[in-house]
Amino acid sequence: MSSTFGTLLRVTTFGESHGKGVGAVLDGCPAQLSLSEEDIQKQLDRRRPGQSRLTTKREEADRVMILSGVENGKTLGVPIGLFVANKDQRPDDYKTMRSIPRPSHADYTYQIKYGIRSASGGGRSSARETVGRVAAGAIADKFLHERFGIEIVAWVQSVGEVEALPIVVDVISREDVDQTIVRCPDPPAADEMVRLIDNVRERNDSIGGVIACVCRNVPPGWGEPVFDKVEAKLAQAMLSIPSTKGFEIGSGFAGTHMFGSQHNDPFVLKGSRLGTTTNFSGGVQGGITNGEPIIFRTAFKPPSTIGLPQMTADFEGRKTVLEARGRHDPCVVPRAVPIVECMAALVIGDLALRQQYRQLSS
Amino acid sequence: MSSTFGTLLRVTTFGESHGKGVGAVLDGCPAQLSLSEEDIQKQLDRRRPGQSRLTTKREEADRVMILSGVENGKTLGVPIGLFVANKDQRPDDYKTMRSIPRPSHADYTYQIKYGIRSASGGGRSSARETVGRVAAGAIADKFLHERFGIEIVAWVQSVGEVEALPIVVDVISREDVDQTIVRCPDPPAADEMVRLIDNVRERNDSIGGVIACVCRNVPPGWGEPVFDKVEAKLAQAMLSIPSTKGFEIGSGFAGTHMFGSQHNDPFVLKGSRLGTTTNFSGGVQGGITNGEPIIFRTAFKPPSTIGLPQMTADFEGRKTVLEARGRHDPCVVPRAVPIVECMAALVIGDLALRQQYRQLSS
Amino acid sequence: MSSTFGTLLRVTTFGESHGKGVGAVLDGCPAQLSLSEEDIQKQLDRRRPGQSRLTTKREEADRVMILSGVENGKTLGVPIGLFVANKDQRPDDYKTMRSIPRPSHADYTYQIKYGIRSASGGGRSSARETVGRVAAGAIADKFLHERFGIEIVAWVQSVGEVEALPIVVDVISREDVDQTIVRCPDPPAADEMVRLIDNVRERNDSIGGVIACVCRNVPPGWGEPVFDKVEAKLAQAMLSIPSTKGFEIGSGFAGTHMFGSQHNDPFVLKGSRLGTTTNFSGGVQGGITNGEPIIFRTAFKPPSTIGLPQMTADFEGRKTVLEARGRHDPCVVPRAVPIVECMAALVIGDLALRQQYRQLSS
Amino acid sequence: MSSTFGTLLRVTTFGESHGKGVGAVLDGCPAQLSLSEEDIQKQLDRRRPGQSRLTTKREEADRVMILSGVENGKTLGVPIGLFVANKDQRPDDYKTMRSIPRPSHADYTYQIKYGIRSASGGGRSSARETVGRVAAGAIADKFLHERFGIEIVAWVQSVGEVEALPIVVDVISREDVDQTIVRCPDPPAADEMVRLIDNVRERNDSIGGVIACVCRNVPPGWGEPVFDKVEAKLAQAMLSIPSTKGFEIGSGFAGTHMFGSQHNDPFVLKGSRLGTTTNFSGGVQGGITNGEPIIFRTAFKPPSTIGLPQMTADFEGRKTVLEARGRHDPCVVPRAVPIVECMAALVIGDLALRQQYRQLSS
Repeated sequence: MSSTFGTLLRVTTFGESHGKGVGAVLDGCPAQLSLSEEDIQKQLDRRRPGQSRLTTKREEADRVMILSGVENGKTLGVPIGLFVANKDQRPDDYKTMRSIPRPSHADYTYQIKYGIRSASGGGRSSARETVGRVAAGAIADKFLHERFGIEIVAWVQSVGEVEALPIVVDVISREDVDQTIVRCPDPPAADEMVRLIDNVRERNDSIGGVIACVCRNVPPGWGEPVFDKVEAKLAQAMLSIPSTKGFEIGSGFAGTHMFGSQHNDPFVLKGSRLGTTTNFSGGVQGGITNGEPIIFRTAFKPPSTIGLPQMTADFEGRKTVLEARGRHDPCVVPRAVPIVECMAALVIGDLALRQQYRQLSS
Repeated sequence: MSSTFGTLLRVTTFGESHGKGVGAVLDGCPAQLSLSEEDIQKQLDRRRPGQSRLTTKREEADRVMILSGVENGKTLGVPIGLFVANKDQRPDDYKTMRSIPRPSHADYTYQIKYGIRSASGGGRSSARETVGRVAAGAIADKFLHERFGIEIVAWVQSVGEVEALPIVVDVISREDVDQTIVRCPDPPAADEMVRLIDNVRERNDSIGGVIACVCRNVPPGWGEPVFDKVEAKLAQAMLSIPSTKGFEIGSGFAGTHMFGSQHNDPFVLKGSRLGTTTNFSGGVQGGITNGEPIIFRTAFKPPSTIGLPQMTADFEGRKTVLEARGRHDPCVVPRAVPIVECMAALVIGDLALRQQYRQLSS
Repeated sequence: MSSTFGTLLRVTTFGESHGKGVGAVLDGCPAQLSLSEEDIQKQLDRRRPGQSRLTTKREEADRVMILSGVENGKTLGVPIGLFVANKDQRPDDYKTMRSIPRPSHADYTYQIKYGIRSASGGGRSSARETVGRVAAGAIADKFLHERFGIEIVAWVQSVGEVEALPIVVDVISREDVDQTIVRCPDPPAADEMVRLIDNVRERNDSIGGVIACVCRNVPPGWGEPVFDKVEAKLAQAMLSIPSTKGFEIGSGFAGTHMFGSQHNDPFVLKGSRLGTTTNFSGGVQGGITNGEPIIFRTAFKPPSTIGLPQMTADFEGRKTVLEARGRHDPCVVPRAVPIVECMAALVIGDLALRQQYRQLSS
Repeated sequence: MSSTFGTLLRVTTFGESHGKGVGAVLDGCPAQLSLSEEDIQKQLDRRRPGQSRLTTKREEADRVMILSGVENGKTLGVPIGLFVANKDQRPDDYKTMRSIPRPSHADYTYQIKYGIRSASGGGRSSARETVGRVAAGAIADKFLHERFGIEIVAWVQSVGEVEALPIVVDVISREDVDQTIVRCPDPPAADEMVRLIDNVRERNDSIGGVIACVCRNVPPGWGEPVFDKVEAKLAQAMLSIPSTKGFEIGSGFAGTHMFGSQHNDPFVLKGSRLGTTTNFSGGVQGGITNGEPIIFRTAFKPPSTIGLPQMTADFEGRKTVLEARGRHDPCVVPRAVPIVECMAALVIGDLALRQQYRQLSS
């Protein structure tokens, strides 16, 4: 297990899907930041199951409790303990799955790694683990917004083969994104995505998708080469989210088809600072922010827990058919939008603090 | 700067492109491993400039020296110091670029971050920094091969729009890969890639590409959820290599188009252990290896230093035309193959050691 | 703030003296360890205020709750969340101390560091923070005892100028130590210590003391030179406990008076392994355990919060007299005994796991 | 092995006593600091063997080479590689010691830990490993002095039972300390120490001693509770130096004899800031600097390699007499003075950088 992330702004998460609850400790958050449970709750509500017909019917209120680190509405500079109690446990749903590892799920690998695993629901590999990340990331997000004016906005770029038109990254807001239950700010595409997800759910199947994210107003100079480059830490953060299979920044895989003369972003004066006329770099050069918007995309595979019968093997290797129960999202991307934003905030927040000591130098 | 990577197997790199040399310290390598400079030199030679007509003409012998940690051909379990002297410095080539930051290069961001930068050639952002990674990674690679039979093989999957046919990952070897100077094991595609790179170089332009990599025989159970999942650390490692813009594992971005019923990898008995009939997961489930081959791809953008004149701005924001000098690869992927392998070895090696203490538990 | 400690066995603590509670997350604890709240409660009860007339009269039940990581009485190998609710808050006691920083307390330094501080009772600098350490350390202690037979026992060696006779470290047990309320296993000295503490309390003053600790049955070979030597990590751990001013291992400061010919511990065959006839080294050589008992001592200063009037200055620098209220221990060492044991267990436990991967090598 | 120390200012050391050389990589050093090899050489010369008749006769020039990170006399903000070649190797001296582990030396524990050890001279456990620490620490020392006016001065407080009078910590300088070859600024005591060491050397024996150190002008507010308190990191740093057995800060062990009413340091206005009239705290309260001088002491045992015959056992457990050869210091404290200063500079330098991001908050 390695449940701690970050160097100066450091999050530690804990909790399984069917224990007493899930939570996080956020250490290194600067003092004197205004902070209430409501500030955190907003993002948790966007991650919550049961928020729309697209998500699992499990009703989880997911109320966050601040256990420590905040007094009279202000952070003290000490660790902020965060806790969300688990509700609505139905371990019976998982009984038949005890002896049969779900294909493409973590049942098998956890058993092999630890010689034991959570009785039900995926335990620590469950998406429920991300509650702690969202709670801690919401604080990083607030800090970055208040101190630097940074805006982090993610949205659903595609579901299956349904792809949104290119989004204008300079103005897109969370409110825009939340206009549709699928969190895609291109309404016609959103309609088609919703239809696709409805159809997939009816067939007891699941489908993947891509989330895009922009971080605006990040000052130039952040990022810690050579191993903690901005894109390297974002990639680690994104690929640590359950169900992710890919990450790209700026031009990404498509950029490999381009010539340097097309791909290079020419410099130009923007107000009092240098900017670039194009942004194939995605806001980073040499692992350090250049002041342009950071743009990246994360690929989510179709959820592995599906109702359709699957030919597979049990732990003993005997052929068997698995029909999974439980209530699961047919597509995770609508609810994963705040998770992507919060993990991005934890990455950017840590790099923000790590750059500050250099103000000494200049 | 954050030039240290890994928890138990920990590499620290140092050195700029035009200083005395580049190197690394590898700490945590197990004792009693046979190790000679020749073991390391093999991978350095594959990374070396001037090895074929596809690469820059700079001739760098790049001989590695083991400074510490090895005695009588055996590792002592203590830090292994590695050093490669710089040769053939031509800082004059960089003179005109002092006042004009190269578009999509790190000249601008290093200047902003540190208020100072290396006089020439990119300093620490140069690909030369990867010499230390390759030297250290070659040791990790040897350790993984000797103790566990692990085989890590990378190859060029595409250059620009030229794409190799799917490769049979079960048997591909480094010898196969090195059959062509472009390091693509599909000969007809390789021919086309070489022609494309030749053409691009003649035009003083550059082109991107994709490197694929397989890690075979990795035992199940390795990887440290939730933040140090196998794919998360591989993604960080790959995106920390200069010029990279994307990472995907298993089905990657293409997997987002699939239904769960297609994408799930059914379990089946393979000898005495569970395996899967397909491998869309790319060898990892829940961030932990499942015993199947780990398969991932990394996207490299076209190199930013090109000879073609570019309209851009100088540090003061004045419009100007830059014609870069110096000797640079028109396409980095042929030489980046050993870098991908060595960074993968450092990731897998660290996760190997981190899993060992659990042998206690079982 | 840096509230995380350890490399593979990693504890993160959170909570202030007057918030909702205090706790810890213990990550990296091996799976399949039997664990109940009762196992942890035992050490918490020894740390608890109000347990004898020697300690503050605050009554804190300090019941621990396991929030995660344990199912059916077994650890899952995932983070163990631990929480103890705060009770019996009397912030009024601290009102007069708002404008006057207590001499030799952290009131002043926290205010300077963070520009804000906890309204009362020292917040994060309070000894209450150690609840999380004791809870997590009790788990490490159980693991070390069950897997390796390791026994960690601390006791009060001196209070003020009252010093216990040398203790036979080979057999001393926690039961022996708990025979007296001052936790000194030399009964006549214990009587004198109790009288001294009673006297000091009556005078509204406080007094310091020394805790000694032995770790028996630690296998040889543990410890990670050069910076994470056994004694270096023990020293960090002990000096991170509130009120500590010194640490020594083996011969310690007294050993500086000796000649090498007196101080060297000759080797001798003990059963099937090499041992030493004396143990001035205190169980470590070159930062690595040698199989002999690890013996160390930690100095605790007199508590700074005393009822006696003190001439000092307020935050504005105006001369003033402070008469502190609140209920505080006149001497911390009796209650600090389990804290020392638990921090030692966290150190040894981490080094245990870090050594395991080397079993590969031999 | 764990050869990396620090969070933002991070040193990694490498090298054994009889390999090609020893060195360090210092990562995180701020950019634009003036730095030459001569700046570093000064402290190395104070650590060098053969500098006076009190030390081993090995003549080691110990010239440092800066491998990277500095250009045109300024740091670039990137890792600074440092290397010192080994000279004057006489492995023959160590032949007889191959089969007999030296009592109280690391020969035995390294063999057990790694299953192999350096052929001679202690390898990585040798005091020669500290060359890298001194080189890196000299840079931290220069940075702290130039940016903050911080002065770090260590001296020999006692050798055996010969103790210097109390030193006035406000004015003592390195020049004062270097007035005597034993580095004790109390001349009559210094004379006696020299006589004692001469006598001990003639008898082929060795003797211990205590080094005291003061860090002046450290701003208040530095230190990272709860685990990286100033005193905790100093304790780890000091106990990681070969031959150390104890650490105390401020009143230390003697403070345990005091009452709180004596030990508390009253606040008083000093210019524009709060100071204290006494300094039993040793410059830290609650793990955070309070602006008063940081004062600590480190205990060094007598060196274990002595010429006198010793009754001991070989690796097989057979009784034998060891007469060690080789050239070794009869007392390490004169040469350890710069090591203590440099390790203190690395600790304070790291905490300096870690505090800077909080300037945001105030």
